[in-house]
Amino acid sequence: MSDSQPDGSGVVFEDPDYRLAVVDLLGVIAYGELSAFESLVDDAKLAPTVRDKVEMAAMASLEFGHVARLHDRIRELGSDPFEAMAPFERAIDLFHAHTAPSDWNEGLVKAYVGDGLAADFYREIAAYLDAETRDLIIASLDDSGQAVFAVRHIRQAIDDDPKLSGRLALWGRRLMGEALTQAQHVAAERDALSALLAGGIDRPGLDLAAIGRMFTRITERHNERMAEVGLSA
Amino acid sequence: MSDSQPDGSGVVFEDPDYRLAVVDLLGVIAYGELSAFESLVDDAKLAPTVRDKVEMAAMASLEFGHVARLHDRIRELGSDPFEAMAPFERAIDLFHAHTAPSDWNEGLVKAYVGDGLAADFYREIAAYLDAETRDLIIASLDDSGQAVFAVRHIRQAIDDDPKLSGRLALWGRRLMGEALTQAQHVAAERDALSALLAGGIDRPGLDLAAIGRMFTRITERHNERMAEVGLSA
Repeated sequence: MSDSQPDGSGVVFEDPDYRLAVVDLLGVIAYGELSAFESLVDDAKLAPTVRDKVEMAAMASLEFGHVARLHDRIRELGSDPFEAMAPFERAIDLFHAHTAPSDWNEGLVKAYVGDGLAADFYREIAAYLDAETRDLIIASLDDSGQAVFAVRHIRQAIDDDPKLSGRLALWGRRLMGEALTQAQHVAAERDALSALLAGGIDRPGLDLAAIGRMFTRITERHNERMAEVGLSA
Repeated sequence: MSDSQPDGSGVVFEDPDYRLAVVDLLGVIAYGELSAFESLVDDAKLAPTVRDKVEMAAMASLEFGHVARLHDRIRELGSDPFEAMAPFERAIDLFHAHTAPSDWNEGLVKAYVGDGLAADFYREIAAYLDAETRDLIIASLDDSGQAVFAVRHIRQAIDDDPKLSGRLALWGRRLMGEALTQAQHVAAERDALSALLAGGIDRPGLDLAAIGRMFTRITERHNERMAEVGLSA
């Protein structure tokens, strides 16, 4: 077969449902990174110093750098990246519209929690994919110190003003709730993605119990992240 | 001399006024690129399609990529990049506050005219500097197709709606006027930069007539850029 890859991923792409699901997945990740880029640049305006602003803008730029590689892969799979992103624009735009930070600390928590949640979710799904797609997705989740930067600043802010922790803990719960709401909308509307999770003839899938365990793991990691900065989840 | 460079630039940096002036210049360019980045990402929100938004965001990301290299060079010269940028924040922030585009076409003209003006001005000054600084400045002005993208879209917009040309021509004049106003504030306040233009013992400077000719050249190039997209300057 002319289109099979050395790693055998050409074989799985002969299944049109699989190809469609991977294009969907790369589309949602690409639009997610594009939106994260815009939202981080916006939130960087809340930075107390130009130095902090530059650090957040650097994280934003890194997210944007991933978009081009995801688009290239979507084109290799024979689809248009902008068409692939389109079905996810509404849910992701709504997530950001509903979670606009009102100050720098909320922006930091959003960068930290939002990026972490997205990365956990995509990593869970990537485990069910061909090696090439999996590697691309894992590489596109590299946050280059975003978490370290956020953790240091959030901890410092809470040390300086312990009253902050109640408000930021609530904010973290709101971010988690909004992310789950939008993820459910996407799952309900995108059959290809749901089918991917359900598996195929040659691919193991997730039954309902396995999906339940996956969400439990994602929630546990969210709680660990909140605890890491001294916030109750 | 331990700090002289193969190209002899170490010699010119023995003049503390020269070093100070170069740090000033790199500081204003770095803050200019940082602000252009933020402003382009903001203006990208006005894009009619996600495709256009991604193109403008890519130009923004490129501007941001230059900031780190300018900062590195400022550090090599023994100064702090954030202190070097600080004196120019007010003038550049005011430029952007006074020239926030009200729609996508104004944003395109701003990206095209603003970037072109800044590049012309820095290129003129770079001609008076040591080779290493000059090369760094020229590299940091690489717009990677920003002008081509803007020209194509502005022309198309005027083709589609010829009435636009009057409003966009006025807008271009406003951008030029605001840029000159802020440049004059900077020149009046930053002795080191003014001294750089005036020259030193071993360096040729610009007398008033030469400065006048420089501004004439910059204005002429602005007019050419406006004509290129079918606008009267």
